[in-house]
Amino acid sequence: MTPEHRLTEFKIELPPAPKPAGLYRPVVIVDGLAYLSGHLPTKADGTLLCGRLGDGLDLAAGQEAARRCGLAMLATLRGHLGSLDLVTRLIKLLGLVNASPDFVDHPKVINGCSELFADVFGPEHGVGARSALGVASLPANAAVEIEAIFEVEAPAD
Amino acid sequence: MTPEHRLTEFKIELPPAPKPAGLYRPVVIVDGLAYLSGHLPTKADGTLLCGRLGDGLDLAAGQEAARRCGLAMLATLRGHLGSLDLVTRLIKLLGLVNASPDFVDHPKVINGCSELFADVFGPEHGVGARSALGVASLPANAAVEIEAIFEVEAPAD
Amino acid sequence: MTPEHRLTEFKIELPPAPKPAGLYRPVVIVDGLAYLSGHLPTKADGTLLCGRLGDGLDLAAGQEAARRCGLAMLATLRGHLGSLDLVTRLIKLLGLVNASPDFVDHPKVINGCSELFADVFGPEHGVGARSALGVASLPANAAVEIEAIFEVEAPAD
Repeated sequence: MTPEHRLTEFKIELPPAPKPAGLYRPVVIVDGLAYLSGHLPTKADGTLLCGRLGDGLDLAAGQEAARRCGLAMLATLRGHLGSLDLVTRLIKLLGLVNASPDFVDHPKVINGCSELFADVFGPEHGVGARSALGVASLPANAAVEIEAIFEVEAPAD
Repeated sequence: MTPEHRLTEFKIELPPAPKPAGLYRPVVIVDGLAYLSGHLPTKADGTLLCGRLGDGLDLAAGQEAARRCGLAMLATLRGHLGSLDLVTRLIKLLGLVNASPDFVDHPKVINGCSELFADVFGPEHGVGARSALGVASLPANAAVEIEAIFEVEAPAD
Repeated sequence: MTPEHRLTEFKIELPPAPKPAGLYRPVVIVDGLAYLSGHLPTKADGTLLCGRLGDGLDLAAGQEAARRCGLAMLATLRGHLGSLDLVTRLIKLLGLVNASPDFVDHPKVINGCSELFADVFGPEHGVGARSALGVASLPANAAVEIEAIFEVEAPAD
């Protein structure tokens, strides 16, 4: 099964590819690696999932936010490549959690994105290296921001 | 026009290449990619632009700090390569904003660096992927710290 | 002298390679680069070195935490590659310090890891690019988290 087949099987719907919030590109490809910008958790209605873990936002909401960051990255990749079947595997994630100083469950939050990628690209190619951390604040008070590097079968931009 | 020509045209003066603040190199080149260490916003007098966005430092000062991080990176690249004309394009930026928990305009701050790179390397090659986030604190209380990956025409170190 | 010889000469003992705290791999190799996940400071008894710099944890403890993050990364690399002699050099570090808003000595903290790598891989190949920053919180309240990219002589995973 290819990633596009798995999207269909798991009934995963992608949001529209997000527009940049500043002077940057959502993805740059060089030497077979796709560098994805930090992606924010867009909800179905187009607004962002906002708030702070450990200060009003619970773990389930944080995981949902991480998953939505992942969906936004998939939308960016499909929009750029034409098909997710050109994604070979995940290399790494940097998972930024909008978190209070006493929050400790960053890995559980970012798992919301990692589980999505494991579903879409499979347990062999969808699980990469990862760092998870708590940040003081995020753009537009987003709950989570995630950037990634994927290996892709595509020429440099 | 080449990057060095654009520097002249835009009357952009580079500061001295910064010295490392610890046991690291300002830049490492491997496989045609230049990995730049986090650079801080050095002012013309050699001191750092310090303070926190959302807590005493306004947006214009933050943008100026981001621009100065960019100028410091250009100084490091020119010092290492001999000429910015060996820089092919920007791949990605990681923009760290010294920000209060309620700050939300990180993208606007980091645009101060992105606009500099778009001027110097052009809108096609000077705009890359990017993440922007608010951190709890930065070395020496710097207002902004930015790290980057550039594609370069130069051998590995 | 090779890295494994230096480990012996400096009487450096590696902890067991850490288990992932979530859905990720401790290291992924692609195109001769090893991307290491964020590693936490495991103590000899297997527990983590916890706390916040500038808020109860002093500089020496922070440096020891950074060194332990480095030891954990070496354990991951040796476990994956079979020998540290297949590590060619350090490319970059991202050093995350669990720090209060007024903390300013992040570079000194992360030097605890950088000095270890300079000892093990030598001053030429063990010193790379680096960013150091203060984060709002870290998984399990760890004092430091460090991720890295190394150049290695090993096939892609």
